[in-house]
Amino acid sequence: MPPPNPTRHSALLTDLYELTMAAAYFENQFNPAASFELFVRTLPPERGYLLAAGLEQALDYLETLAFTDAEVDFLRRHPVFSHVGDAFFDYLRRLRFTGEVWAVPEGTVVFADEPLLRVRAPIMEAQVVETFLLTSLTFQTLVATKAARVVEAAAGRGVVEFGTRRAHGPEAGVLAARAAYLGGCIGTSNVEAGQRFGLPTYGTVAHSFVMAYADEEESFRRFLRVFPENAILLVDTYDTLAAVDRIVASGLRPKGVRLDSGNLVELSKEVRRRLDRGGLPDTQIFASGDLNEYAIAEMLAQGAALDAFGVGTELATSKDAPALGAVYKLVAVHGGPESGSRVKLSEDKATYPGPKQVFRFRGTGGRYDHDLVARADEAWPEAEPLLTCVLRDGRRLAPSPSLSVNRERAKESLEKLPAPYRAFRQPATYPVRFSHALEELQEEAARKVFQPAGRRPNDAG
Amino acid sequence: MPPPNPTRHSALLTDLYELTMAAAYFENQFNPAASFELFVRTLPPERGYLLAAGLEQALDYLETLAFTDAEVDFLRRHPVFSHVGDAFFDYLRRLRFTGEVWAVPEGTVVFADEPLLRVRAPIMEAQVVETFLLTSLTFQTLVATKAARVVEAAAGRGVVEFGTRRAHGPEAGVLAARAAYLGGCIGTSNVEAGQRFGLPTYGTVAHSFVMAYADEEESFRRFLRVFPENAILLVDTYDTLAAVDRIVASGLRPKGVRLDSGNLVELSKEVRRRLDRGGLPDTQIFASGDLNEYAIAEMLAQGAALDAFGVGTELATSKDAPALGAVYKLVAVHGGPESGSRVKLSEDKATYPGPKQVFRFRGTGGRYDHDLVARADEAWPEAEPLLTCVLRDGRRLAPSPSLSVNRERAKESLEKLPAPYRAFRQPATYPVRFSHALEELQEEAARKVFQPAGRRPNDAG
Repeated sequence: MPPPNPTRHSALLTDLYELTMAAAYFENQFNPAASFELFVRTLPPERGYLLAAGLEQALDYLETLAFTDAEVDFLRRHPVFSHVGDAFFDYLRRLRFTGEVWAVPEGTVVFADEPLLRVRAPIMEAQVVETFLLTSLTFQTLVATKAARVVEAAAGRGVVEFGTRRAHGPEAGVLAARAAYLGGCIGTSNVEAGQRFGLPTYGTVAHSFVMAYADEEESFRRFLRVFPENAILLVDTYDTLAAVDRIVASGLRPKGVRLDSGNLVELSKEVRRRLDRGGLPDTQIFASGDLNEYAIAEMLAQGAALDAFGVGTELATSKDAPALGAVYKLVAVHGGPESGSRVKLSEDKATYPGPKQVFRFRGTGGRYDHDLVARADEAWPEAEPLLTCVLRDGRRLAPSPSLSVNRERAKESLEKLPAPYRAFRQPATYPVRFSHALEELQEEAARKVFQPAGRRPNDAG
Repeated sequence: MPPPNPTRHSALLTDLYELTMAAAYFENQFNPAASFELFVRTLPPERGYLLAAGLEQALDYLETLAFTDAEVDFLRRHPVFSHVGDAFFDYLRRLRFTGEVWAVPEGTVVFADEPLLRVRAPIMEAQVVETFLLTSLTFQTLVATKAARVVEAAAGRGVVEFGTRRAHGPEAGVLAARAAYLGGCIGTSNVEAGQRFGLPTYGTVAHSFVMAYADEEESFRRFLRVFPENAILLVDTYDTLAAVDRIVASGLRPKGVRLDSGNLVELSKEVRRRLDRGGLPDTQIFASGDLNEYAIAEMLAQGAALDAFGVGTELATSKDAPALGAVYKLVAVHGGPESGSRVKLSEDKATYPGPKQVFRFRGTGGRYDHDLVARADEAWPEAEPLLTCVLRDGRRLAPSPSLSVNRERAKESLEKLPAPYRAFRQPATYPVRFSHALEELQEEAARKVFQPAGRRPNDAG
């Protein structure tokens, strides 16, 4: 059996319209370089920031993008392409991503309207990769952001990501584990994510193990025999306090106990008392069961005696904000008769034209003060540009930073973000401004759109 | 480059605790057959039913489950297993799923508390597969259910699934496309899903194509040249009505136009008028842009002149209900000193013991009247048992039905479900009852839990 190759994705993993547009460009012999930008229109509810994530998987995809013969043959037979000649399919067979990518590093705090990624490539290539780039960046960004919130709520206590069973399929579970670690979780229960990304993996024990033996205490004893140092016993299968009393009375010394139901504030206090009184002051209390940042903050505010948290569903699905309104928009065509910046004017969905850079201005103590979205060729030496060139001629410019480095960047970036923007409910809106030069470019581009066809200077031929 | 093998998943795609429990069972020489059931505790908000989906991927996984040497070596080095001997890892190297699976066929309407799947296997095998089974069944069930609602709202008009870019990673997009088709969508934009599952694929054109040319009409003309029969032109990039006027005036004859922003009710009526007046009565109007069942039903109620819908984010993430509270619970241990039915008594999370069957009773016109959850060995000849045996000795008993067959089953099953249970808001609660024999078994099993250890009849040795 061949080992799985999870980083190789089918080139068909795109929307059909990316390929029909590519065919239309090809047949019209139109393939100028173009710039596209990926950004989020509005932050999800209750989010004051996003933590950028998923770039690594996007770059893996761009570096390995190639259609197999079988994939091209599949397209060749699709009825939508019945008027498209063989030459286009030969082009697909040779297609590689040869462009340039600028991106905000993983683990950077970002906001609405800020490009997370900018692609400059022949327009056919830049178009075909849209779908994959969006799904890679948006999902991990959602989960990393959720993780950062949950970890902040836990106030120094460890948070383990537990959500694969509720994730949107097995691969989503693996990616969620990665993003959650990036966002500050100490690890995951997902073993595949552990192997693939080098994440610390954790596990306790399930109700089924307790139930497999007719007697609860026997199940505890058997588990501890095999895991004398690591066992975290699940105590809520029948009666939480009775189970804890049994552990104490029988002299078992688990590393921890896990509470998964009931009133965790009251139970944890009482369990702590009984463990301490029973000579088990070092036995930790681990909580799980539909937890999120709101529940954790509330429980700790009420004095819950909890040492660590397992968070599943809410993290792996970013349940209260399960989708990110990210888009990938053409901002410029470079060279040829159609050269120029581009804007879209659709109602409520207008865009800023031209390749852009995000400049971050800091205040006292290095804390983030405001951002400026500007034309890519502007210079703001007193600010930090967030987008850097990571891929050129279709290849990474340097090996990617490790996930640990990105996780450390996330920690620092979050620390520099003032608290009002990190509030769990109704956070303050971080100031994102647009440069004068960018505003001017937008007015100019919008004016051009409304010039009747035929009067454009370059359209004479 | 090897072709991707998306149906082969790493055996590490599980939670670590499944493997620590397996190790504990192994070291305790405890591996009786056990029965586990997968069910949903409560329906998500606004859902009156679920449409079962994802079984095929679950069965693929069970039939191919095997640890590679590299995967076993990875586990061997994990510090949590430091007290576990080599014999367990040799066991993992040989591990295959050898059990039996009963399941509700894909495309069947199901409700809370009804087992969707029952596994009977040596307890170690049954435990290790928990995580994958849950993530496979819950995600596709969520999306198939959402699709069924959206399709019902569209009242006979076609719905195409468009959501990969907002799905939880690329693989989630492929699975969402499959589930959406099962739920009644006419196809997807995801080309990989088209190839892998034989789904019809559709595409229109993006704003970028319109913007790539400095002149909108030129972009329309160029696209139509290549796709004379299939082109659905996107008309909202700058000004929807002006774009439609331009199409009419220039004699273009697209198959359809797509509206993606603005007031779709008013715009669609006016676009319809202008197309009809311009001699394009056959040109369809396609709507997209953050649509869901609520928006579609509302627009149609207001007389929107829309012929088909593209639904993305809401479908691919089941956005208003992005997670399903499904669990996989031990219900019986078969044979050995620990033999017997099992219940869990955790607060708000108690379970019914023993292997179960779901019996569906029909009323007039074959419409669903109520369900009865009963012991698997009960006979209710006037009702239809929902769970059938699909896998024995780790192998499918028969080739799986095609996705088209399952899709047809979904259509029929939904038609038999009375309308009040299909309401989009505050649906009626379908009656799910529990048999007398099952209630008796639960009382008995709960009593046994509370017998002090040592007094159980089989525990003397």
